[in-house]
Amino acid sequence: MAETAKRLRDQGRDIIDLSEGEPDFPTPPHVIAAAHAAALAGKTKYTPVAGTPELRAAVARKFRKENNLEFKPDEIVVGTGAKQLVFNALMSTLERGDEVIIPAPYWVSYPEIVEIAGGKPVIVRTAEHDDFKLRPDALEAAINEKTRWLILNSPGNPSGAVYASEELGQLADVVRQHAGLGILTDEIYEKIVFDGSPFQSFGAVAMDLRDRTLTVNGVSKTYAMTGWRIGYAGGPRNLIAAMVKLQGQSTTNASSIGQAAALAALTGPQDFLPGWLEHYVRRRNLVERQLSDIPGLRIPRPEGAFYLFLDCRQLLSRQGITRDTELAEVLIEQAGVVTVPGSEFGTPGYIRICFARPEADLEAACSRISDILHPIAARTAT
Amino acid sequence: MAETAKRLRDQGRDIIDLSEGEPDFPTPPHVIAAAHAAALAGKTKYTPVAGTPELRAAVARKFRKENNLEFKPDEIVVGTGAKQLVFNALMSTLERGDEVIIPAPYWVSYPEIVEIAGGKPVIVRTAEHDDFKLRPDALEAAINEKTRWLILNSPGNPSGAVYASEELGQLADVVRQHAGLGILTDEIYEKIVFDGSPFQSFGAVAMDLRDRTLTVNGVSKTYAMTGWRIGYAGGPRNLIAAMVKLQGQSTTNASSIGQAAALAALTGPQDFLPGWLEHYVRRRNLVERQLSDIPGLRIPRPEGAFYLFLDCRQLLSRQGITRDTELAEVLIEQAGVVTVPGSEFGTPGYIRICFARPEADLEAACSRISDILHPIAARTAT
Repeated sequence: MAETAKRLRDQGRDIIDLSEGEPDFPTPPHVIAAAHAAALAGKTKYTPVAGTPELRAAVARKFRKENNLEFKPDEIVVGTGAKQLVFNALMSTLERGDEVIIPAPYWVSYPEIVEIAGGKPVIVRTAEHDDFKLRPDALEAAINEKTRWLILNSPGNPSGAVYASEELGQLADVVRQHAGLGILTDEIYEKIVFDGSPFQSFGAVAMDLRDRTLTVNGVSKTYAMTGWRIGYAGGPRNLIAAMVKLQGQSTTNASSIGQAAALAALTGPQDFLPGWLEHYVRRRNLVERQLSDIPGLRIPRPEGAFYLFLDCRQLLSRQGITRDTELAEVLIEQAGVVTVPGSEFGTPGYIRICFARPEADLEAACSRISDILHPIAARTAT
Repeated sequence: MAETAKRLRDQGRDIIDLSEGEPDFPTPPHVIAAAHAAALAGKTKYTPVAGTPELRAAVARKFRKENNLEFKPDEIVVGTGAKQLVFNALMSTLERGDEVIIPAPYWVSYPEIVEIAGGKPVIVRTAEHDDFKLRPDALEAAINEKTRWLILNSPGNPSGAVYASEELGQLADVVRQHAGLGILTDEIYEKIVFDGSPFQSFGAVAMDLRDRTLTVNGVSKTYAMTGWRIGYAGGPRNLIAAMVKLQGQSTTNASSIGQAAALAALTGPQDFLPGWLEHYVRRRNLVERQLSDIPGLRIPRPEGAFYLFLDCRQLLSRQGITRDTELAEVLIEQAGVVTVPGSEFGTPGYIRICFARPEADLEAACSRISDILHPIAARTAT
């Protein structure tokens, strides 16, 4: 997909990329200023592998204040993006053949990382009529003696699902029955929730599961800092120690400059976030509105994150195009819009578009998508 | 060791840390300015996993101009420190039980990474009278059908050994006889060579081995940028692609800000480097001079890098202290100087000190070390 996009760009085509999952906003100026000041102050040396004491303390305060989670400094690790913390947790804990339950649609890296770590991803499909949320009975049915982890991602990428407190509690009830089962909860989209959906951290709903819960988060999505590569995690001391040990042999500390920037992001003003959220809502609504009249296209409303996960299954029953991957190719080739087919997320028949983009780009993209999809929708069903 | 140092510091003791392997110089101002400008210009987003095209092009030019090595853009990858590139290379290529030849003394992470990747480190001791360099016959004797990689590190940490062109050529002759054997050459201390020792990249001596040579380097040591975490590597396309794939699932791109800083370091003025080198030489000479009169302590002269690897074997035959680890503990506890025992590098009986420190610190440290070691040296031999 990226190659097709690059080829067309090289040919001079105007390509709108709605595939990359990152905010278009600039990193806030006070964060950039803090990074610059840190570099000038000589904070250009190795830090402790787990992160600077200042940043870990700020993460602990954030977890306490915003998520009702308590962590000591040695229960927190800072890494090169939230992805590294997922990677380190799974690499540190999985034995060959261990199973990891991953609800689909899933973020593409989860099953890949499980396989690199020698484990077996166990994909549990969720249903659109359940808002793409894992049901307790489906979880129970997927657990066996080899199951080592359940990965939760709320707000979810690409689904936009935000688990309510009660729903997390029901999953926790299942987890409690299985002593060896850990919960890796990826909460990187925490701050991007719509329509008053309250965000709830799994750990705060199931404090008794503290010793087997790893909470992963980072500054990338909330503060528009994807390039800085700073994620963090809180969890039980032994697990964190194992993750830090692995990190010490793979990348050492995350960038000292990035850590200074993340410290400023977490401890500085937060007053711009509601404004950003308004932008996201307006953009979501814009895309929904512009694509609403395409017959056979359904647009489940996301409760969080910044993706629309378009249900194209009816469209794909029309003549000529049967798979989401083909549809995504058509959207690049003919509309010049880069999207991600749902099969990448373990959910064929859907197309993901990221709406963390300027409204003008979204309007142009939707207009072009609409022009392509209307004739397809008008074809005879196969 | 770090814990002892921390405990003593917390007690208010003045501790001089000569253990951490990083320059004390500040990152050059033009590098910091470039990082700041990049952040303000919005270079705060994801970059290609392998690194920005600009930085990879600059790395290719550096390899061509300084090392006589030719790489295309897709034969170069930028990572979160040189360590990540070693990690990714071994993780991407080792099958369980594959062997990796590591000359000792070695950088501590090599055998650890080999083990994480499921391989078996095969340690080949080198002799001080060979300047701690791997001999071709010793290499030949260590190779068997399971050998996948030879790791070379020149200039060497902790040994300071710098392989001459002829010596590399002799090793290449052995490598040529074994078709499956790759060479990972870690050249991170390239610019820190003394007494006119010319640095020679392995790849330029054995161009016919190009398809199985991975050249690893980075900006950390040369430009005093350890905290920024930017390393790079050049190698055959297939290997680089495998490394990029793994990186895409573990950390994604190295910090976009760090990459902008590294670009400035590689393409900006280099005129301050000779001055830094003079500092290193003066510091090396200072420590040699100050510790020269301790009976039983021998100080092999390093040709490169910024470590002295003190031969304490005669001292350790005295009453009371028999192991390098005990001696390092004594140096912390009684002299307040943090060093690293040689057994960490697979070479017991030695102590490593980093002389990339202000002269005042080195003078104070040497004076205290001298005060501790003289009485020990005066003890009866066991």
